[in-house]
Amino acid sequence: MSNDLDFVIRHADVVTASDRFSCDIGIRDGRVAMLGQGLPGAPRELDASGMLVLPGGVDGHCHLDQPMPDGLRMADDFLSGTRSALCGGTTTVIPFAAQAKGQSLQAAVDDYHSRAEGRALIDYGFHLIVADPTPHVLAQELPRLIENGYTSFKVYMTYDDLKLNDRQMLDVLTVAREHGALVMVHAENSDCIGWLTERLLGKGLHAPHAHALARPALVEREATHRAIAFAELVDVPILIVHVSGADAIEQIRWGQSRGLPILAETCPQYMYLTADDLGHGEYEGAKCVCSPPPRDPANQNAVWKALRQGVFSLVSSDHAPFSYDDPQGKKPGGKEVSFDHIPNGIPGLETRLPLLFKGVKEGRISLHQFVEFTSLAPAKLYGLYPRKGTIAVGADADIVVWDPEKRVTIANASLHHAVDYTPYEGIDVTGWPRHCFSRGELLVEDGRLLDVKAGRGRFLPAGKPNLE
Amino acid sequence: MSNDLDFVIRHADVVTASDRFSCDIGIRDGRVAMLGQGLPGAPRELDASGMLVLPGGVDGHCHLDQPMPDGLRMADDFLSGTRSALCGGTTTVIPFAAQAKGQSLQAAVDDYHSRAEGRALIDYGFHLIVADPTPHVLAQELPRLIENGYTSFKVYMTYDDLKLNDRQMLDVLTVAREHGALVMVHAENSDCIGWLTERLLGKGLHAPHAHALARPALVEREATHRAIAFAELVDVPILIVHVSGADAIEQIRWGQSRGLPILAETCPQYMYLTADDLGHGEYEGAKCVCSPPPRDPANQNAVWKALRQGVFSLVSSDHAPFSYDDPQGKKPGGKEVSFDHIPNGIPGLETRLPLLFKGVKEGRISLHQFVEFTSLAPAKLYGLYPRKGTIAVGADADIVVWDPEKRVTIANASLHHAVDYTPYEGIDVTGWPRHCFSRGELLVEDGRLLDVKAGRGRFLPAGKPNLE
Amino acid sequence: MSNDLDFVIRHADVVTASDRFSCDIGIRDGRVAMLGQGLPGAPRELDASGMLVLPGGVDGHCHLDQPMPDGLRMADDFLSGTRSALCGGTTTVIPFAAQAKGQSLQAAVDDYHSRAEGRALIDYGFHLIVADPTPHVLAQELPRLIENGYTSFKVYMTYDDLKLNDRQMLDVLTVAREHGALVMVHAENSDCIGWLTERLLGKGLHAPHAHALARPALVEREATHRAIAFAELVDVPILIVHVSGADAIEQIRWGQSRGLPILAETCPQYMYLTADDLGHGEYEGAKCVCSPPPRDPANQNAVWKALRQGVFSLVSSDHAPFSYDDPQGKKPGGKEVSFDHIPNGIPGLETRLPLLFKGVKEGRISLHQFVEFTSLAPAKLYGLYPRKGTIAVGADADIVVWDPEKRVTIANASLHHAVDYTPYEGIDVTGWPRHCFSRGELLVEDGRLLDVKAGRGRFLPAGKPNLE
Amino acid sequence: MSNDLDFVIRHADVVTASDRFSCDIGIRDGRVAMLGQGLPGAPRELDASGMLVLPGGVDGHCHLDQPMPDGLRMADDFLSGTRSALCGGTTTVIPFAAQAKGQSLQAAVDDYHSRAEGRALIDYGFHLIVADPTPHVLAQELPRLIENGYTSFKVYMTYDDLKLNDRQMLDVLTVAREHGALVMVHAENSDCIGWLTERLLGKGLHAPHAHALARPALVEREATHRAIAFAELVDVPILIVHVSGADAIEQIRWGQSRGLPILAETCPQYMYLTADDLGHGEYEGAKCVCSPPPRDPANQNAVWKALRQGVFSLVSSDHAPFSYDDPQGKKPGGKEVSFDHIPNGIPGLETRLPLLFKGVKEGRISLHQFVEFTSLAPAKLYGLYPRKGTIAVGADADIVVWDPEKRVTIANASLHHAVDYTPYEGIDVTGWPRHCFSRGELLVEDGRLLDVKAGRGRFLPAGKPNLE
Repeated sequence: MSNDLDFVIRHADVVTASDRFSCDIGIRDGRVAMLGQGLPGAPRELDASGMLVLPGGVDGHCHLDQPMPDGLRMADDFLSGTRSALCGGTTTVIPFAAQAKGQSLQAAVDDYHSRAEGRALIDYGFHLIVADPTPHVLAQELPRLIENGYTSFKVYMTYDDLKLNDRQMLDVLTVAREHGALVMVHAENSDCIGWLTERLLGKGLHAPHAHALARPALVEREATHRAIAFAELVDVPILIVHVSGADAIEQIRWGQSRGLPILAETCPQYMYLTADDLGHGEYEGAKCVCSPPPRDPANQNAVWKALRQGVFSLVSSDHAPFSYDDPQGKKPGGKEVSFDHIPNGIPGLETRLPLLFKGVKEGRISLHQFVEFTSLAPAKLYGLYPRKGTIAVGADADIVVWDPEKRVTIANASLHHAVDYTPYEGIDVTGWPRHCFSRGELLVEDGRLLDVKAGRGRFLPAGKPNLE
Repeated sequence: MSNDLDFVIRHADVVTASDRFSCDIGIRDGRVAMLGQGLPGAPRELDASGMLVLPGGVDGHCHLDQPMPDGLRMADDFLSGTRSALCGGTTTVIPFAAQAKGQSLQAAVDDYHSRAEGRALIDYGFHLIVADPTPHVLAQELPRLIENGYTSFKVYMTYDDLKLNDRQMLDVLTVAREHGALVMVHAENSDCIGWLTERLLGKGLHAPHAHALARPALVEREATHRAIAFAELVDVPILIVHVSGADAIEQIRWGQSRGLPILAETCPQYMYLTADDLGHGEYEGAKCVCSPPPRDPANQNAVWKALRQGVFSLVSSDHAPFSYDDPQGKKPGGKEVSFDHIPNGIPGLETRLPLLFKGVKEGRISLHQFVEFTSLAPAKLYGLYPRKGTIAVGADADIVVWDPEKRVTIANASLHHAVDYTPYEGIDVTGWPRHCFSRGELLVEDGRLLDVKAGRGRFLPAGKPNLE
Repeated sequence: MSNDLDFVIRHADVVTASDRFSCDIGIRDGRVAMLGQGLPGAPRELDASGMLVLPGGVDGHCHLDQPMPDGLRMADDFLSGTRSALCGGTTTVIPFAAQAKGQSLQAAVDDYHSRAEGRALIDYGFHLIVADPTPHVLAQELPRLIENGYTSFKVYMTYDDLKLNDRQMLDVLTVAREHGALVMVHAENSDCIGWLTERLLGKGLHAPHAHALARPALVEREATHRAIAFAELVDVPILIVHVSGADAIEQIRWGQSRGLPILAETCPQYMYLTADDLGHGEYEGAKCVCSPPPRDPANQNAVWKALRQGVFSLVSSDHAPFSYDDPQGKKPGGKEVSFDHIPNGIPGLETRLPLLFKGVKEGRISLHQFVEFTSLAPAKLYGLYPRKGTIAVGADADIVVWDPEKRVTIANASLHHAVDYTPYEGIDVTGWPRHCFSRGELLVEDGRLLDVKAGRGRFLPAGKPNLE
Repeated sequence: MSNDLDFVIRHADVVTASDRFSCDIGIRDGRVAMLGQGLPGAPRELDASGMLVLPGGVDGHCHLDQPMPDGLRMADDFLSGTRSALCGGTTTVIPFAAQAKGQSLQAAVDDYHSRAEGRALIDYGFHLIVADPTPHVLAQELPRLIENGYTSFKVYMTYDDLKLNDRQMLDVLTVAREHGALVMVHAENSDCIGWLTERLLGKGLHAPHAHALARPALVEREATHRAIAFAELVDVPILIVHVSGADAIEQIRWGQSRGLPILAETCPQYMYLTADDLGHGEYEGAKCVCSPPPRDPANQNAVWKALRQGVFSLVSSDHAPFSYDDPQGKKPGGKEVSFDHIPNGIPGLETRLPLLFKGVKEGRISLHQFVEFTSLAPAKLYGLYPRKGTIAVGADADIVVWDPEKRVTIANASLHHAVDYTPYEGIDVTGWPRHCFSRGELLVEDGRLLDVKAGRGRFLPAGKPNLE
């Protein structure tokens, strides 16, 4: 290994989760080798004057090419998904290897690797989804997978094909406690949703807007409280994902103030969408069908406020890509179906950072919190730190040169995913990635995706969650 | 109907839930006909000087001769149970007609009437226990039974043979809302209890004291929160029964302060027993096995404080009588079984009023609250007011002449139930009933049970719950 | 004393704070002598069929003929004030004997007696206002006055001529604790109000609407919290008067849930007026200038909800009568003055019961709560029970026969006070007193004030506060 | 300026508030010039293997040579104070230029500069203490001083010679809002303390332990709530200093959860001392007399928990040095005085970091939080960032090479202040500074203070508070 630098970013206004400093960044062998003023020259250089220089985003919650039941298919595979992420300033993604009921977890993981390999443009880790915690899964597979770098898993308290009962929740949390993994919880009360859905359908309410009526805030609040109780009983940290508003926040805050190890995540949809985006009868509302559903402006404010105050640890996209005009997507079999049969999820990988940065511009969160929520926290929680999540000597040179003044009106036509819409169409943001590096390689230059080899992205075995 | 009085209680220091006044009480045809100073004479008279004159107690939560599985049998039937109640100052009981899975509710009610008839000494109503809310039960039986005077029912969130799932809870609450009934909820998380029980047994913990470890406060707190969410979703009042301490109280208070119609009940065991009474290994702790388990002194104080502040509406006994040295009781099949096989419940019908009155003497609650909790509130909630629950013109002359200075050391030998122990053995109280009237008939005189005809007690069809 | 009755009210549907029963009411020597069905005849009788029969209202917070500084004068003296109260169903008033700085309390009391005598139509007690707690007042006068039947006193945390500093508050609370009196607290932060007032005037905001801006909810909330701290420190009950909305309620609830002896009162203005009634510049808003100021509909709802839940103990009028078009009233010296010079207060004695009963009709509170808040609670708290506050044998026959279906549009022209306006002009209510008795004497018949002798009302020395 | 490095720290395991990385640190001209692996050689080098390399501590709350009334004198001047700080790993101190009543603020500042010059070993800033906010101070002096680098000031709600009334508080907060300064608040209710003190003395309680009785948690809680109300009213951030336990924390959390800009500080005394350290009569308890007083173990835990959760922003020493056996110190005039005459304060500059690091070793807070609380947060809040508070390119090379395994039993004999005791005598800690740099100059080597020139420390004009 030579001491010569491969690349130098000059005049970098570097922002990390806690610090801001000006220097040149010297890159060697894909890593940050040197930070300093007046670094020696390198074969390639780039002047970052006037820009912010940020650690590349880590999207800790997204779905790519996840096997789906009922003839559905996610629009993004690892190629289009990572392409979109990269163009939005995210240089690491952590999608889900999902166990089907009856399937072994290892088989799900193996299958998922085969979907990623040869396609990913940027580095990636895997979360697991544990849908069938058989004694074998609990005693054998999960511990071995944790050992092998799959240290986070998601459990669902709703969705018929995925949900665990309370006893299974406790079992999975116990494995997490014993082997040092982090459990992500989708918290909504399944029975309440089913009961409400039946009544809504019974009243002839089939359109997408009924999706919000079937999942009111209290079904999320209840399950959040319950999950917190389980975490307390087992004495293990949990992460409540995609928190949508004030009711669940109240419970999380309550848990945290009791000293319980309750972490939480939110997503841009809960800051930028409302139940009105599900329409008032028209099917186009299907574009915004996700769970929990977006709420209202008061809840949006509650989410921003909780972000500011540190109730949340991170902001993820929960990218779940289904095209609207697609018989494998939002119109299953080519038809406008009743709300309970619309595949849940919205695309958001590429817009996550710009949408959150809008909050920085508007004074809702600080620039350091922006880095914390989008990069450092997911890297730490999911065991990828210090390779990912910061700009520091020794870290992977996953770097975004961010133009804080660039004004963009979000338009699906300009995005790089394979979904035929974005729920954020027309929103004006200021701030967009200008150049993006992954492991020292310049992949996006002046906002333009360079010719990147599919499959250059590498799998990242995860270390233990770093909850400090 | 003549205008002559049948009985006059002279110099009564009458206490109701809100008032206190001195007068003579004139009784005619079993009812209070006149209150006044210097009432005309009557064939029978009694001087109540120096005593308090209270409306007879209404025990809104007790179990008598309830059919049990697994060869168990309750020690008290309607005869011994009502005898014990009466001697403790309670003149109305409301035990449970319990549906078995697969059984029709009407059959359970019919059976239960046959158990009461010819035996009860005092008047009684029935709650229902809904354990199998089939579509027929929900659509036909429950509405008809409500119509016929069975306007309150209990549901269980735990116990394998009784528990409802969340969906069933919502269904039952909906019937209550539509037909104007009151649902009583036993709130403990069943899965958590099962999971803990398995682990405790796995560690070799079989003794009664492990009962408390298997049902920590958080399993009650969680289910309480969940039940509150259901009440909010369905928009119907519920009554959380036998609340054991601070954790559940916190949730109830939270619900009430949001304006939700959450009522709550507690019992003397949560003011006078602690988990220590389950012993430290010895089987005798089985005497105090009830659910939720008694907690600790801090929780006892929380219960008293919440009583004072009006968080609770009423105090019941949850009398569930199993003899200790009984193969059909606490030693099933004659054996000392593991904690999870001990029948749950303790006797308490006769001691309820004296134990709560001790709180009056100690300044923890007021005398009016004593009447409210033990008589007026259950009468109103369970649709028996204004016949029961007060001393007012027109009400049934169910009257207790209470000696506020009588000192008694509680001893099972002096009690009138058929259980072979009391968990309150040795507790000193001041205040005990001296004379008790039921519908104007003097049944207990100078603390001595007179010769009362079994079966004189009548069934009281209940009106709609009065939640004012 | 003969046993013959003087008056019988037939077919009374009697409502007390806890009970409702039908009977005849027999009155003798000004007191309720007998309750019963089919009472013997009396010289005078009245048929109450179709009406509710309620204990006469007790207004625990009103100002009548209170000496004022700066050439101001209250419009109502004891004659017009008690006339107005009576016609609104209130049969006892408790106005304030107010100490001026430098004055002895006894002198204030003596002066106040001279104002009441010969004028009052109904019975009355006195609260004290302690504005100058000198060592002599604390050690001598207050204890003696408490002994003599003045067992409640009010202290102010604002108003330059009345306010106590924190140290003085503690001193007065200590006397209350030692001698068994109840302290009523006007809780607003004086310095904040002064600071805001100066800024508002500096910006040229002089109109009545600025009154609300000068006294935002947080100045009430802060002082409420502080008063609660003092009550905790001294370990003595306090009563926070005229609570205006959610912020102060939150603090009171917080104190109560910690088990502190915090009582609270609210008034109809906080359920029926808002800051909009202070106008948007026009001087007529002066009619609604009172402190704390009315808030907004959300706070009105918070007040109703807290009433329902028992956060408040009572509802008073805080009648403080200044005529609008009066140089001794709302236009001091005949001028439209800046908001900080408008005398604070609105009239409300006569409308208190009908306005609160509207809440009964709308299901916001129960009928029993209505009686509790308007009659029983003030009678108990201020030591007038059991003479006042209920319909029971032995109580004064202060009885209101209330027509629950009478529809009235409130109009000052129909009221009996001496103020030239009512802030409630035009509000529709259903329910109004039809007949009113004071000590067995029928003073209002069919809604018409009979010829009542001025001065028939008697002073009621108060017993110790009954806080049960 | 040459590009050659002056000093290189090799193999540094650098920890900042958010990151941890391994590299060499190159220092030039007193600043961090380069971070990298394999930096070129320098005239001086130091191997940090096995150590943690941390940004030097910033003590944001300490008192040095502050003019005192009544013949008292602080034991530490800028020489001994900064010496002690440095030896404990603190490389920046921010003591208080305190205005006396009647004095101009500028005069206080000028005087304080003359006390620091020629004595300080390390860099320092000044907070102001505003004790006499005259119109001139508010309109002229404060704005000008803020402009000139004095951007934080402390106000007292207690102490007769320092306290502001509520109106003055609002005035000072308004200046802070308009000119961008940060107000630190000593929150205790003065009147309550005075009232309690008088009663305690009246009961003959003179010994130091009565100090805790005179300042119970509620007097701190009340003032905290009040200060929060003022911050809300003026809409300006405040920092509640030296928070002692659960009661004040509850209020702070309440304010924060409402979205108010409430910051808070705590001190090691609230984690390591209790009221028991004030003794039980013996005068030696005077050593631990500080305000608020230390509480009890439950409150210590509450403080640690709130630290972990981010309720607090920083940990300061509140070093207030009075020798015990000193007629100008804890024995004024050479006598054992009553508790209310004991000068308040304890020494703690040198032990702050080791005591807090003990919490890292015990898992109570994270290593990153340690850096945040002791260095980054005070540097940012008090406008010294990015010169102080981190190890980053461009920052002052204020660096502590920390031995995380060094075991030390705290003993005053080993400390470097001029106080004759430490309240922490005998506490075992693990972790102590080994080498300390100030602006690139090695001043402590292997735990030994080198020959440092008095007066080398420089005054740091502060920028605006950075509250991100």
